[in-house]
Amino acid sequence: MVTDNKTADANLESMLRIFTVPEAPDSTLGKIEQELSQNLNQFLREHIVAEEKPLTEIEKDFTDSSMPEYPTYVSEHTEHLLETVVSQSVHTSAPSFIGHMTSALPYFLMPLSKIMIALNQNLVKIETSKAFTPLERQVLGMLHRLIYGQESAFYERWMHSADHSLGAFCSGGTIANITALWVARNRLLQPEGNFKGIAQEGLFAALTHYKYSGLAIFVSERGHYSVKKAADVLGIGQDSVIPVKTDNNNRICLHDLKLKMEQAKEKNIKPLAIIGVAGTTETGTIDPLRALAEVAKQVNCHFHVDAAWGGATLMSNQYRYLLDGIDLADSVTIDAHKQLYVPMGAGMVIFKDPELMSSIQHHAEYILRKGSKDLGRHTLEGSRSGMAMLLYSCFNVISRPGYELLINQSIEKAKYFAEIIDQQDDFEVITQPELCLLTYRYIPKNVTRALKKANPEQTIEIYEHLDELTKFIQKTQRETGKSFVSRTRLTPEAYQNMPTIVFRVVLANPLTTKEILHSVLIEQREIAQKSEISLPQLTKLADSILK
Amino acid sequence: MVTDNKTADANLESMLRIFTVPEAPDSTLGKIEQELSQNLNQFLREHIVAEEKPLTEIEKDFTDSSMPEYPTYVSEHTEHLLETVVSQSVHTSAPSFIGHMTSALPYFLMPLSKIMIALNQNLVKIETSKAFTPLERQVLGMLHRLIYGQESAFYERWMHSADHSLGAFCSGGTIANITALWVARNRLLQPEGNFKGIAQEGLFAALTHYKYSGLAIFVSERGHYSVKKAADVLGIGQDSVIPVKTDNNNRICLHDLKLKMEQAKEKNIKPLAIIGVAGTTETGTIDPLRALAEVAKQVNCHFHVDAAWGGATLMSNQYRYLLDGIDLADSVTIDAHKQLYVPMGAGMVIFKDPELMSSIQHHAEYILRKGSKDLGRHTLEGSRSGMAMLLYSCFNVISRPGYELLINQSIEKAKYFAEIIDQQDDFEVITQPELCLLTYRYIPKNVTRALKKANPEQTIEIYEHLDELTKFIQKTQRETGKSFVSRTRLTPEAYQNMPTIVFRVVLANPLTTKEILHSVLIEQREIAQKSEISLPQLTKLADSILK
Repeated sequence: MVTDNKTADANLESMLRIFTVPEAPDSTLGKIEQELSQNLNQFLREHIVAEEKPLTEIEKDFTDSSMPEYPTYVSEHTEHLLETVVSQSVHTSAPSFIGHMTSALPYFLMPLSKIMIALNQNLVKIETSKAFTPLERQVLGMLHRLIYGQESAFYERWMHSADHSLGAFCSGGTIANITALWVARNRLLQPEGNFKGIAQEGLFAALTHYKYSGLAIFVSERGHYSVKKAADVLGIGQDSVIPVKTDNNNRICLHDLKLKMEQAKEKNIKPLAIIGVAGTTETGTIDPLRALAEVAKQVNCHFHVDAAWGGATLMSNQYRYLLDGIDLADSVTIDAHKQLYVPMGAGMVIFKDPELMSSIQHHAEYILRKGSKDLGRHTLEGSRSGMAMLLYSCFNVISRPGYELLINQSIEKAKYFAEIIDQQDDFEVITQPELCLLTYRYIPKNVTRALKKANPEQTIEIYEHLDELTKFIQKTQRETGKSFVSRTRLTPEAYQNMPTIVFRVVLANPLTTKEILHSVLIEQREIAQKSEISLPQLTKLADSILK
Repeated sequence: MVTDNKTADANLESMLRIFTVPEAPDSTLGKIEQELSQNLNQFLREHIVAEEKPLTEIEKDFTDSSMPEYPTYVSEHTEHLLETVVSQSVHTSAPSFIGHMTSALPYFLMPLSKIMIALNQNLVKIETSKAFTPLERQVLGMLHRLIYGQESAFYERWMHSADHSLGAFCSGGTIANITALWVARNRLLQPEGNFKGIAQEGLFAALTHYKYSGLAIFVSERGHYSVKKAADVLGIGQDSVIPVKTDNNNRICLHDLKLKMEQAKEKNIKPLAIIGVAGTTETGTIDPLRALAEVAKQVNCHFHVDAAWGGATLMSNQYRYLLDGIDLADSVTIDAHKQLYVPMGAGMVIFKDPELMSSIQHHAEYILRKGSKDLGRHTLEGSRSGMAMLLYSCFNVISRPGYELLINQSIEKAKYFAEIIDQQDDFEVITQPELCLLTYRYIPKNVTRALKKANPEQTIEIYEHLDELTKFIQKTQRETGKSFVSRTRLTPEAYQNMPTIVFRVVLANPLTTKEILHSVLIEQREIAQKSEISLPQLTKLADSILK
């Protein structure tokens, strides 16, 4: 391609060329693609700048609001992308990026993604997806079987049944949770007598007909924020999400659940759903699913499990017991872009009963034909990409035992990290890992000792300084760019259930080594020493208490 | 990679290898990728089987519901994908695939997609997306400016403002429409006095507080089915979607709109939104947006424009007048995966007023921090991919004048097609193209003549046979696999407003030539001749009327 800027011109011929003439292997983009194919990790390491640039600085490259009036050559634009976008993106797949739920991706997914995108199928209907439709149905079926373990005959009957659906593929866990609660809502407030159902008549008419004063969704305080979003979207209102207390292990407190349900009943508020979390975002904890299912059964209420992050654990024969009772759920959310190792944009909701999704069935005569196998009839989204293909490939290439190895080593790595944190006299684990997620914090030795003697006022003061120190360490470490842990706020018993800022790590990246874990702690300790405010204040305070 | 099946084994070493060892250029997948890079069109032509295989046959490859217990080599799996998935997918980018809104894609998007996927950013928050966040904000800003044309100062102030958002990037038009109506709903039923707003208290409390008997969304009969879906999801109910009659040009009838609004008012039903369609799915027609905006203004009601398909026309200085008044809309839906030529999964909703989206603002302390620029605070979806990068690249590489050329030639091609249809004595245009979408049908000469003499009973009989014949031609043509037009059902004046099946074509693919258009008609005429039921019956009937 010509690289002389002055000759760039939007004529029809050059516009048609972008649809017909591929990038030459020796073009800028061609070379980059090759580099990327040959060694993705190296490419990312080389092109992503580690040290953090302030966001306001980055924004300067993205200030022009005018639509470009002149075309740019692909080669030139590629250089621009490398300099301004790629360099300032986040190295989410780095083995030392252990602060969020992202991971390295299997290599074979890069070329496969390209095929998927080149095919550009639209899964909303058969006419624009063909084989991709049964493929997606099979992927949903496999996940269904992994969760619910029905017999083959069940899947033979339902997996490809036109008027049924075992679940929905969607862009992520939020849409999956909204879909589950949408189904639960429409099923609870279904047609009866003269009432045509909530889908038709809306929530006001539905509550009037069923004579309920309101609806309630019960979920632990550690539930994902998407539940509140769902309650807002679905017209139920965020106040209807009843936060249930958690025990000292961050699991839903059954006693408090029953209490809250009793209170709701007295107010004539109908339980819409009980949600169990299988892997909370902040602590990775799994609620007692079997017990929750029992409560839901007693009041005949929809039981949803948000296993967006932890659901992949079902692949592990060794650890799937941690999700005991998940097969009693009416619906389950699982994100494939988390521990199933596919790229961003792949969530799923699975329904136990193939009839359930009929409550949200939509037709559009001559777009989604009744009786057709069009997936769009049972999804919140309309047009959708063929993302399911990547999960299909992972299932086949990695296989369940392969996933089991990955899951097991993640959990064991987290246990190992908890152990080495415990061995340090200036770090402490705040929440032990159940899966591969744990929280901890840095606390200088003398501060630990001082806390034992501190009066309530001094204790609060220490807590505040510790929070500041934790924030300082996390922020500095992120900005330095060598490694990244995230932070969150918990209310640990050890800190008198006071809001407490902690480090949070997720060890799902198979490439994260034990050495990296050691060096994360060393770096954090070094950063702490450099703190010019919190640490000196803490030391002074501790000294005055201990003297 | 080893290809001996018997040695496939899920050990940790081989599992780690999939994250570290790239596909070799001479591996099966490497070779396919190369083939695809060198000539995508040829790759698709060669690998996608043209002739249609029945779906039940295709499903046989996707029946196993068990999670694979043995890993498959990537090379082996790639072969499998080619044989079962790629071969049976739909050639959506073929120049002769003119039945839906898909098109060929610019070549440079293939390698760029790979980079985007390899970076695996999560746009829900800055910490996992960095430069991608200001990039997406810029893309939304550019679209905003294209629609609303505010001054630069406006964008300097709002485009990167933490607590504001000019719109939301999402997976597609359905989510975009739901988001727009969600915002409209929450804004209409906002906090007031003791009432904490619908987001908090839900729809029942909201209608009770505001003393409305219900809500109504006004949209023409040709509106997209996602509006009904939105009404269901948002708890308003599908009955609240009031279908407004269309005139003979398939545009919303203002008289009927006012009548329906009057009727709603009498029932104390509050208008939630008036929706104008800028490019209906079935006929490509654009509603009179300026007049609709006027009506909305009079009753102080949210005015949404669903320009999912037609919005890209704004790129054309020559044709943007067709969307006159769109700048008066409170919100606009545009799909980038339609006429902006990016791959599936890229929708957007743009809001005129940067304050509007605050009504759906969600926080999750320590996930989406208040005051941060996290995009997840204003989106229905949670985790999302960096799809905006592809649109950003298209804006820069193609530029507005480039898009204008593409849009103009699509519209002109559609006009050309309408002309040649009119020239045939056995085809007729049913709806003229406003943009690049038109509908038509095949009708034998003697049948046209017979219809002029037929009594009402005979007329109905002819109509039924013509419908059957149209279906037969469309289905056979699709199955033969040379070209694809879609079909839909309209109520044309020429057919006494009776439901009438017609062919529907969308000419957005820049590679579709005039020759292809000619050959589509020739093929349809040939297929019609082969009809063993409808055509002989039509001929017989026509003969008996004409004799």
